[in-house]
Amino acid sequence: MESRGKLYEELLCSINGMYHISCRKEGREVFIPFSFLEKYYEVYGKLTKNRGHEQFEWSHSYSKVFKPTTRYNSSGMFMYFSNYNVEVRDRVKCISATEGVPVSTQWEASGYYYPVQVAQYGLSHFSKNLSDRPPKRKVLEDGNLVTAKWQVPKGASVKRNYDYEKFTHVLEFNSHDSPGISLKLKQGIDLVLSFDLRFLSMNGSLTIFLEDRDRSTIFPVSFVCSPVLIHVLNSSAGSYSTNYGLGSCQNWNQLTRDLHVDLVKGHVLSGRGKKLSKTKLRIHHLLIKGHGQLDNLTLASSNHMGMFYSSADWLVRHQDSSGGWPIGVKRKIASGKADLDPGWYSAMGQGQAMSLLIRAYYRSGKSHYLEAALKGMKPFSKSSTEGGVRAYFMNQYPWYEEYPTVPPSFVLNGFIYSLIGLYDVLSLAPHDQVGDAQLLFDQGMHSLKKLLPLFDTGSGTVYDLRHFTLGLAPNIARWDYHSTHINQLLLLSTIDSDPILTTIASRWISYMSGKRAAHN
Amino acid sequence: MESRGKLYEELLCSINGMYHISCRKEGREVFIPFSFLEKYYEVYGKLTKNRGHEQFEWSHSYSKVFKPTTRYNSSGMFMYFSNYNVEVRDRVKCISATEGVPVSTQWEASGYYYPVQVAQYGLSHFSKNLSDRPPKRKVLEDGNLVTAKWQVPKGASVKRNYDYEKFTHVLEFNSHDSPGISLKLKQGIDLVLSFDLRFLSMNGSLTIFLEDRDRSTIFPVSFVCSPVLIHVLNSSAGSYSTNYGLGSCQNWNQLTRDLHVDLVKGHVLSGRGKKLSKTKLRIHHLLIKGHGQLDNLTLASSNHMGMFYSSADWLVRHQDSSGGWPIGVKRKIASGKADLDPGWYSAMGQGQAMSLLIRAYYRSGKSHYLEAALKGMKPFSKSSTEGGVRAYFMNQYPWYEEYPTVPPSFVLNGFIYSLIGLYDVLSLAPHDQVGDAQLLFDQGMHSLKKLLPLFDTGSGTVYDLRHFTLGLAPNIARWDYHSTHINQLLLLSTIDSDPILTTIASRWISYMSGKRAAHN
Repeated sequence: MESRGKLYEELLCSINGMYHISCRKEGREVFIPFSFLEKYYEVYGKLTKNRGHEQFEWSHSYSKVFKPTTRYNSSGMFMYFSNYNVEVRDRVKCISATEGVPVSTQWEASGYYYPVQVAQYGLSHFSKNLSDRPPKRKVLEDGNLVTAKWQVPKGASVKRNYDYEKFTHVLEFNSHDSPGISLKLKQGIDLVLSFDLRFLSMNGSLTIFLEDRDRSTIFPVSFVCSPVLIHVLNSSAGSYSTNYGLGSCQNWNQLTRDLHVDLVKGHVLSGRGKKLSKTKLRIHHLLIKGHGQLDNLTLASSNHMGMFYSSADWLVRHQDSSGGWPIGVKRKIASGKADLDPGWYSAMGQGQAMSLLIRAYYRSGKSHYLEAALKGMKPFSKSSTEGGVRAYFMNQYPWYEEYPTVPPSFVLNGFIYSLIGLYDVLSLAPHDQVGDAQLLFDQGMHSLKKLLPLFDTGSGTVYDLRHFTLGLAPNIARWDYHSTHINQLLLLSTIDSDPILTTIASRWISYMSGKRAAHN
Repeated sequence: MESRGKLYEELLCSINGMYHISCRKEGREVFIPFSFLEKYYEVYGKLTKNRGHEQFEWSHSYSKVFKPTTRYNSSGMFMYFSNYNVEVRDRVKCISATEGVPVSTQWEASGYYYPVQVAQYGLSHFSKNLSDRPPKRKVLEDGNLVTAKWQVPKGASVKRNYDYEKFTHVLEFNSHDSPGISLKLKQGIDLVLSFDLRFLSMNGSLTIFLEDRDRSTIFPVSFVCSPVLIHVLNSSAGSYSTNYGLGSCQNWNQLTRDLHVDLVKGHVLSGRGKKLSKTKLRIHHLLIKGHGQLDNLTLASSNHMGMFYSSADWLVRHQDSSGGWPIGVKRKIASGKADLDPGWYSAMGQGQAMSLLIRAYYRSGKSHYLEAALKGMKPFSKSSTEGGVRAYFMNQYPWYEEYPTVPPSFVLNGFIYSLIGLYDVLSLAPHDQVGDAQLLFDQGMHSLKKLLPLFDTGSGTVYDLRHFTLGLAPNIARWDYHSTHINQLLLLSTIDSDPILTTIASRWISYMSGKRAAHN
């Protein structure tokens, strides 16, 4: 510093007269420690190297905006959901082996099916299927044309025969009293395993043995005859195994499993944390026990469409007569001020399910997906006070509630997801069957454009309007929700040319780099 | 720094990847220059001394909150207006010598009477009268009991006689062709001069010669027969004189002048800036020219009640048949989106006028003040679209508009001032004459409590709801308006125990020291 002839000193800084920190002074300039600013303003900073030179990167927000380059297409990718990995989220306990969809622990630790999450899981895989390269796929055993080299110990047996229930050849196995029938697999990086399985015995299991790359550990993942969702067995030797229950295993179960995810969830439950790199895992061998039938055993780099249809089928199976996907857990908004009792519907859940089901219909041509998508609109016309999802802002502007609380909460992102669901139905359903979709969409867009400014804080957005309806402090949207708001508006702006959408989106983007609305 | 063994270096900081500043680094701590933060966050900082030690004071806001200690009293001080000096504001051209009230240049450079400003001028003096020590007052000449030693040159004359129009003795003067009749005054710090004056000749003037303390300059301030509001004459010698027009000077004019203010306004108009310390000024002498009458010549340390009644009388004189105080200038809100054409009323103007007039009634007992205050409520029941000040939020919640634009602007502070005006009328007017005051106040309070949360940004407040009604960016309230919002709520909380008022006020106070509403 002496080269510039300036004095560098410590200096006490008094912050609003409330607390004191140590600053630095150099000439007339005062320097404030970033460790203070980080907490005071919740900004982000890190030391990085730029061409060998150290520099400090200050970020106002941590989130990203995806600017659409083309008009939104209801049969294409769903927003930026191809970036989502719903199943690896902490609040996903595991993928159920009976349902093929994620189980949430967000609001109830024991786990429950959350339609929003199920739909997002399906939509993310639908989108990944479009964005990723086509999967590598290898059928290992189909009971007919492709046969695997099973290692059948003494006393056990395998045979291939025609199954009159399934209308196809299957592999029938019976391990009797042996340690099981095994199949050694060639080391490869593909970890998505599909198979159709049923047992003819009361018990039985199919176990996949995963090995880490340096071959120091073996991790068994089993699918067993049990009603228990997931169960981890710690062995005396310090290892553990992960079991997934197949429920009533005497019926045919069609499974598509990401074995890395299946293993990670067991790893977490065993208390070993979630760090288990996918690239280090290989399938070593497979072991089947009991008496049963196996078909279409397939190993692939991915099976996004399988997972997508698992979600679609779950939604078809679990839709109730009112068209809703009831949510079986209590939802507490704002500590007792507006709780939702189990059985509530979410407009966001309905909308996301509709986005998914109408895509399933478009891809498969199967009308039961269309029917479910159309039925999903029914709660949009029913008031939150009567078990629907429809609220009104000041008795005038209809709003489809992610959380249909009374009084309403007016969550922005959930409302827009519900509008996208309506739009997807409008776009892909036969014109003569769309029912109220156009009216519901138009009314919703009208409300959105009118009420959007109420979510603008001049430096960010609020997540909902609970400050207005419940008399609470504004519920500021954290940056990822803020960017969701923006991404949603940008999507809508490709299908609706009203400049309010782009004007507000641009302003909200500017807030992410520290700009603020002017003061008077 | 070496004593702590740490390295102090220069470091480049990249701010949101958008621009780059020079920071400092010491160990793992990065120091950010305040000169950057000051602009980025609009915070305030200054180097100060605390017991000989230099320190740096960081302030999140520059404004202050006045916590009321007692219940608001409609006959007492008006909020913290005793701190206001309306007349010295830059946007006040001067105090008119014909009207005795300020002339605004805020929205029209040529000057106009702005009822809000007139009322605030009066309310500030009413409040100062209660907060300041009683004035020192010296009658110099009353034409009867108190007589001054006028210096009457040859050819000129003074006499004292009874005036049958004024029902009192007055001083009659005639300077004829002399340089004028003068009165030498004892040097004193009192600068508020009152007098009653009329001319019997066509022309005439009364000039006060002010001297600065070191007697280096003489500043003449004249009251002359002229329709011109204020006029500054620059002399060849580099000095100047300030003239105030008395209008039709053949009628009795009752003047109360703060000579310091009168001089400063001339000083500014002469191009000399506004720095003219009051404490350095003394009255040197007085000079009258022409033929006329003078009475009640009084010098005082202040005459707040005189100024207060000047405002009250102006409001009585200028109220129209609809009960409004029309504002004669165009008001542009948001560049052409919602302009107000000359002749509009302001709910804030009405309310502040009512607060003032009802105090004038309470103090004087004169019923014309009461009548004007009661009539002032009339525009509250008339829609903005029909020339009134009443708007509705979503057709449901009435709001009294400071700026009755179409669509409405929902300015918060002006609305609350209008509520205080209604409350003052309710408190001090005879019960059987209050008319709609109770209904208007109750409806307004109901709207206020309901809509207050819409002004909360989670880190400050918005000034109005133009973002909602006009589709503009939120109009963030600068800190002095933010603190006005708080002060108003705290006032209301002393007369209405609804906890929403104190809850919101507390939250808004916390924003002033950098606290923010939580994000999700």
